[in-house]
Amino acid sequence: MPDRFDIMSAACPTRQVLRRIGDKWTMLVISALGDHGTMRFSELSREIEGVTQKMLTQTLRALERDGLVEREVFPTVPVTVQYSLTPLGKSLAEAVSTIRAWAYGHMDEIEGARREFDAQPAPSGPPTPMATPA
Amino acid sequence: MPDRFDIMSAACPTRQVLRRIGDKWTMLVISALGDHGTMRFSELSREIEGVTQKMLTQTLRALERDGLVEREVFPTVPVTVQYSLTPLGKSLAEAVSTIRAWAYGHMDEIEGARREFDAQPAPSGPPTPMATPA
Repeated sequence: MPDRFDIMSAACPTRQVLRRIGDKWTMLVISALGDHGTMRFSELSREIEGVTQKMLTQTLRALERDGLVEREVFPTVPVTVQYSLTPLGKSLAEAVSTIRAWAYGHMDEIEGARREFDAQPAPSGPPTPMATPA
Repeated sequence: MPDRFDIMSAACPTRQVLRRIGDKWTMLVISALGDHGTMRFSELSREIEGVTQKMLTQTLRALERDGLVEREVFPTVPVTVQYSLTPLGKSLAEAVSTIRAWAYGHMDEIEGARREFDAQPAPSGPPTPMATPA
């Protein structure tokens, strides 16, 4: 299985999936649905601070197309639309929660590293690309 | 610890870290260094197909600033610059490899879901945002 795909190869379809997963709103939608289960559009919109209706609509549609999110329509007045993770989406939610836990757990170290880096003088020597000619 | 941060909050610093991690080139640099250990700029550039020198330079510098990548300069002629993961970077590499493994393992399911979705007629009912007024 790993031999069929190579994420380092520009043409590999996993590159595109990586970009999709890496999208901020994708991670947050997957996270929210992973935490709360079934949610309505307005609930997602309130939970994910800063997301616009347009971005949320696009993100949900892309996730539905990828088979990660299920959209259910109920014939109420007005129509009720609910979103939940598919089994495939749930498996991704686990991987995403690893990333979220990492971010929560290491935020202080990252902020410390930034303060230290910003306090240093600029590195000596030529800029990196010139330093190692191909 | 989890109470201090909330990724759903727009002002939470973990949002920015999530965006950084989610960046395609960040994931690929972390992945490459996780697989190969110490690498020169030119080696990274060859390994990560499609990355430009500019993007690689920017990505490495951001990762260095976040304390995830260590840059070492050796006074050879020309100067040799090597990159490797810090212990903090290695811990992120583990989380990233979970995402990569997920992408490799579920690519077929995703492509199948896309074919099915694209073959369906457009969903009935009003567009999502109108369906669930706040």
